[in-house]
Amino acid sequence: MEKTIPYKIYLEEQEMPRQWYNVRADMKKKPAPILNPGTLKPITLEELSGIFCTELARQELDDTTPFIDIPQEIRDFYKMYRPSPLVRAYCLEKKLDTPAHIYYKFEGNNTSGSHKLNSAIAQAYYAREQGLKGVTTETGAGQWGTALSMACSYFDLDCQVYMVKCSYEQKPFRREVMRTYGAKVTPSPSMETEVGRRMNAEFPGTTGSLGCAISEAVEAAMGQEGYRYVLGSVLNQVLLHQSVIGLETKAALDKYGIKADMIIGCAGGGSNVGGLISPFAGEMLRGEASYEMIAVEPASCPSLTRGVYAYDYCDTGKVCPLAKMYTLGSGFIPSASHAGGLRYHGMSSTVSELYDQGLLKARSVEQTSVFQAAQTFARVEGILPAPESSHAIKVAIDEAMKCRETGEAKNIVFGLTGTGYFDMFAYQRFNDGEMQDYIPSEEDLAKAIARLPKVEA
Amino acid sequence: MEKTIPYKIYLEEQEMPRQWYNVRADMKKKPAPILNPGTLKPITLEELSGIFCTELARQELDDTTPFIDIPQEIRDFYKMYRPSPLVRAYCLEKKLDTPAHIYYKFEGNNTSGSHKLNSAIAQAYYAREQGLKGVTTETGAGQWGTALSMACSYFDLDCQVYMVKCSYEQKPFRREVMRTYGAKVTPSPSMETEVGRRMNAEFPGTTGSLGCAISEAVEAAMGQEGYRYVLGSVLNQVLLHQSVIGLETKAALDKYGIKADMIIGCAGGGSNVGGLISPFAGEMLRGEASYEMIAVEPASCPSLTRGVYAYDYCDTGKVCPLAKMYTLGSGFIPSASHAGGLRYHGMSSTVSELYDQGLLKARSVEQTSVFQAAQTFARVEGILPAPESSHAIKVAIDEAMKCRETGEAKNIVFGLTGTGYFDMFAYQRFNDGEMQDYIPSEEDLAKAIARLPKVEA
Repeated sequence: MEKTIPYKIYLEEQEMPRQWYNVRADMKKKPAPILNPGTLKPITLEELSGIFCTELARQELDDTTPFIDIPQEIRDFYKMYRPSPLVRAYCLEKKLDTPAHIYYKFEGNNTSGSHKLNSAIAQAYYAREQGLKGVTTETGAGQWGTALSMACSYFDLDCQVYMVKCSYEQKPFRREVMRTYGAKVTPSPSMETEVGRRMNAEFPGTTGSLGCAISEAVEAAMGQEGYRYVLGSVLNQVLLHQSVIGLETKAALDKYGIKADMIIGCAGGGSNVGGLISPFAGEMLRGEASYEMIAVEPASCPSLTRGVYAYDYCDTGKVCPLAKMYTLGSGFIPSASHAGGLRYHGMSSTVSELYDQGLLKARSVEQTSVFQAAQTFARVEGILPAPESSHAIKVAIDEAMKCRETGEAKNIVFGLTGTGYFDMFAYQRFNDGEMQDYIPSEEDLAKAIARLPKVEA
Repeated sequence: MEKTIPYKIYLEEQEMPRQWYNVRADMKKKPAPILNPGTLKPITLEELSGIFCTELARQELDDTTPFIDIPQEIRDFYKMYRPSPLVRAYCLEKKLDTPAHIYYKFEGNNTSGSHKLNSAIAQAYYAREQGLKGVTTETGAGQWGTALSMACSYFDLDCQVYMVKCSYEQKPFRREVMRTYGAKVTPSPSMETEVGRRMNAEFPGTTGSLGCAISEAVEAAMGQEGYRYVLGSVLNQVLLHQSVIGLETKAALDKYGIKADMIIGCAGGGSNVGGLISPFAGEMLRGEASYEMIAVEPASCPSLTRGVYAYDYCDTGKVCPLAKMYTLGSGFIPSASHAGGLRYHGMSSTVSELYDQGLLKARSVEQTSVFQAAQTFARVEGILPAPESSHAIKVAIDEAMKCRETGEAKNIVFGLTGTGYFDMFAYQRFNDGEMQDYIPSEEDLAKAIARLPKVEA
């Protein structure tokens, strides 16, 4: 007998994942190795351990172990805000009058307001285990910085956040949340690092960029004894930790005998979509199942849909390792977008490789239509979504509307990465009818891509 | 065998309450009747139906029916964001090194960010059922206005919110959430009502008060065909709807065989603490159990601990019915406090009567100590609490620390009414060490109380 599906499926505590899943282990063709920016040779564990905690560096390079135990302390922390609900969007379905069944995995029920906490607590844990004093990082929209502040506060680690200056000024409340958790927040570019001073000298009055803030955070970590740098997206280790999203999603679907037809996630650096699809991609790679999986990116920063697959720097200052990824070039400056978390020139190399192999599709959407979808969703589902997450909502609604045409009762699953409570300036512009769309010209893209480093892939 | 208590206890959907509980039915001595402000006689259903929806007026006056069915549509809406978790605060217990077991009922997992949605959806439902065009209301801190906007959007009702001007200006993001849900938000005092124009003329440049905004909203409702006024606290009907908090809490405790020793709630108008304690108070009134129950109020607005029990107006403009309640006088102007939701001169007449009968105790706390407790809580429990809710946290921590002295393993349950994401200005003042405490002088209180209306109780 078919079980009645509740509005919200919560796993029991004992059903929560005990291991992360490393999708690279099941890939026959692996993502290309990351390169030392000095030698342009594949980076070694020893070299990488200078930037990251040793255990995290190990995870970064491990593309053969399929399951990695989640340490007990991290599992205990997860219990504070996980399992996150898999929600059946009954009200949205009714509003759209669609035969589709829509589900979303909601990761916003914690103070960081997003899924970023899943990796932040893991990275803070390994830093504490290694006996470090603290960590440095950058934050754009602020979700990652907030998540890391919370995680560091939990483990009594010092936390230094370089926050892109325009966000620092436009989102003072995000900054205050981080301060409440004891973090030191510095607007980037700052005068505290070589890179920051250079940027300020070259571009007086600049309001910063994520790429520059990364460089500053790396420099700050290297310059302090007992510090390492941590990053909230793009990296393999982050996708590994974020696999908890997909594992819980799959466990919840399995519990109710639901087979997803379509899995949709927003994509900036790839931490969310990568984590969400990992176990499903694993099934496809092992030939056990088939899914239609879609990464949704902003039309203003279309790395998958309009970028090239090549080695590139992860940061502006070119101090980070190079990764082979779909990229618009590290010199590409995305237009001001309200989805700050998706404003990154590249894409996780694992997500890039899955996309290149055709397991994952991509679609780009414009922000006005994204906010329209966000408003529709907020009004019927009672959650005001983050602009980033709303990219996935937009495509989920589009697909549900197609089902209305065809009469198909597809099971559409999307990742609702977070809430928009700190993005009300963006909603205000939308409410006032003052939001604009921006699509980079072919010429601008070509220029940025022409500046890619010359490295044989 | 004792069950292991998970971090979060979620009821199953089918375990959710199907009826609200009306604690007045079990009270031998009932709360005094509310009075018509014109005649000063107990108000009739017909008179009250001019201000409120008829069904809500009926609920307001019903002090004999113990259980009232929750209509199916409201239950469906509840499923979108309820059951709310009863959380075992393992991390806080560890941090405090206390033998006490601390639980909190967390009502903040919805976009309104608080428990207010429980009554907003009920009031919007009855308005829709009556075929009304819309409703008017006031909001101070903004939680209630946000909740009502969400509820009205769901039922396609027009929603007009008079927002206390200082909040309107200091909390633009709350305003934008309401606008995203389609509400019309007007700063109060406005020039749209008689009361508003009078206030603006008498006190040029005034930034408003809750009492004045109530008067404006009532006037606006009376002046428009097909509109009624709704209120988010103080009223008996609100306590009835909010009993869902207490009923879920009790069901969750019962499921795990936990007997609460102490139940703590913050108290402004009484909607939260009244709803939380209702079923427990019912057990006490029926002689079935005994609990220590504590209402926590701000020292700056101490209606229970320093007010008098008398008939008073609920609003500044004196257009609302009079209620017998613990009050500081409707002319009392509380100092600027960051817990805007607790800044009300009076207290629910049901909560007042329970307090007067000795079933409920009260305690007042100062805001700097409240934010200290909030920070401690946020850092270990991963939720940044609302300033209002943090009053309950403060006393829960105090009581847990007493247990550390005595070695008692008390079960302490408190209501965490909401999140503080729209209160970061307050946290900023706290982070910067600029927060102040304010306790009204005996003289100020005596003055306000001397102006109480002369009505025989």
